[in-house]
Amino acid sequence: MKSRRQFIKLSGAGILAAGATSIKASPGYFLPREEVTNPFHVGMAGYTFLKFTIPQTIAMMKRIGVTNLSVKDFHMPYDSTRDQIISVIKEFKDAGINVYTVGVVYMKSQAEVDRAFEYAKTAGVKMIVGAPNYELLPYVDKKVKEYDFRLAIHNHGPDNPLYPNATDIWNHVKDLDPRLGICLDIGHTTRDGHDPSEDLVRYKSRIFDLHVKDVDKAAKDGRTVEMGRGIIDIPKVVRTLREINYTGCCSLEFEKDMDDPLPGIAESIGYFRGVMAC
Amino acid sequence: MKSRRQFIKLSGAGILAAGATSIKASPGYFLPREEVTNPFHVGMAGYTFLKFTIPQTIAMMKRIGVTNLSVKDFHMPYDSTRDQIISVIKEFKDAGINVYTVGVVYMKSQAEVDRAFEYAKTAGVKMIVGAPNYELLPYVDKKVKEYDFRLAIHNHGPDNPLYPNATDIWNHVKDLDPRLGICLDIGHTTRDGHDPSEDLVRYKSRIFDLHVKDVDKAAKDGRTVEMGRGIIDIPKVVRTLREINYTGCCSLEFEKDMDDPLPGIAESIGYFRGVMAC
Repeated sequence: MKSRRQFIKLSGAGILAAGATSIKASPGYFLPREEVTNPFHVGMAGYTFLKFTIPQTIAMMKRIGVTNLSVKDFHMPYDSTRDQIISVIKEFKDAGINVYTVGVVYMKSQAEVDRAFEYAKTAGVKMIVGAPNYELLPYVDKKVKEYDFRLAIHNHGPDNPLYPNATDIWNHVKDLDPRLGICLDIGHTTRDGHDPSEDLVRYKSRIFDLHVKDVDKAAKDGRTVEMGRGIIDIPKVVRTLREINYTGCCSLEFEKDMDDPLPGIAESIGYFRGVMAC
Repeated sequence: MKSRRQFIKLSGAGILAAGATSIKASPGYFLPREEVTNPFHVGMAGYTFLKFTIPQTIAMMKRIGVTNLSVKDFHMPYDSTRDQIISVIKEFKDAGINVYTVGVVYMKSQAEVDRAFEYAKTAGVKMIVGAPNYELLPYVDKKVKEYDFRLAIHNHGPDNPLYPNATDIWNHVKDLDPRLGICLDIGHTTRDGHDPSEDLVRYKSRIFDLHVKDVDKAAKDGRTVEMGRGIIDIPKVVRTLREINYTGCCSLEFEKDMDDPLPGIAESIGYFRGVMAC
């Protein structure tokens, strides 16, 4: 058996070996062994914390020991000044939390695309999780080259005609710059009638980020449930992520009990780590 | 993919197939698929809820979807009247919670042994988790025959000279009635320098109950941590439980953050279910 100290030491080496530059452990932060032995990492999608302040969000993330965050605009508005953005990032960083991306950022005009890229640059991230209108894709294609950023387009299932699934994203980006890819939301994928593991294999070259969750049925009115209590085959998703050597984040987006989400977040993160440990 | 309804239907069949009579699903209660596909079940050790009332305990168990409870005396005192005991059991049952055992019950005299067996009989359980003084074992041997009850003796690690580990229990009960066995506490086992998976194999014929948890080191001053964050190889424990065809309960005893345990309980139960799902 290894001591907890060894796990922390190992974690640094494991992450360096995985070559992830944007997803890194904060010094001295506890990292469970399953995050060392898999090429990918656990994170939180900021939308989960819709009803909470930044300090409350930090407290919840510390409680569950998760250090990677995709920050959402209610914590860092798009019209923030440069100093305000830097201050929000610092607040998370000082608490040991690595803001590895921003989003989901909807972009309905070139001006909104411009703003999103400057916002991300100021925040110090190299990837945006977003949903630009289809007609903006040629413009976005120029921007990812100009900034050397990746844009991970988020699928929102049957709720939204914009990017309902990974196939739709793929078809729109496959002939564009390889920095245009997918943030696969496994819940919306399932609600749209697709198997997220199959999409991971099919579109592996463009999978940049994941929103992980579970849902109670494969239909538009399917709802988020604690991971493991729904219908998504999470062990299959995890096996597939290993097979495709995914090195990014699996960020939990928990959309249940949003006034009191911590127990469901904790159960879901625990479940995902349990699967990762096998 | 299976619907949630199918999981509930399956669960009844799975449990009947496992032949467990005292560990059963409550009608209509959600049971995750991993509890259907393994011969053993998830539960809670009542000590976890030391600082909470019965309604608070029920609310927490409902939140995490766990239905099996080993009830502790602070919720059902040993000097309760018959009606009081029946009322407590009914309060849990009405909430969908199956009290499958009582304990840990310490027994320091024949009178305390007598009281424990009558208490368990009134509660309607067929197993006691206990720690009778060594010199009472010949008397307890008679009682398990008389009541046709099982006594699962709980190991308390290096803290307590009474039953420090499973080997000590085994040596004391191996020549007694086969209804005398072990409630293996995997945390105390680890803190006492033993591998719980090895003890499970070695003493499989007498493993009646489990207290599951994780600890941060294999020493007397090791402390409970959220499952998966410590040093116990939980995937190995789960694989071993399948190998020995264990059909009882794995009851989480969470001894951290006892004033606010729900997030840690949820994370631990999630982790254990995640491992069970693989």
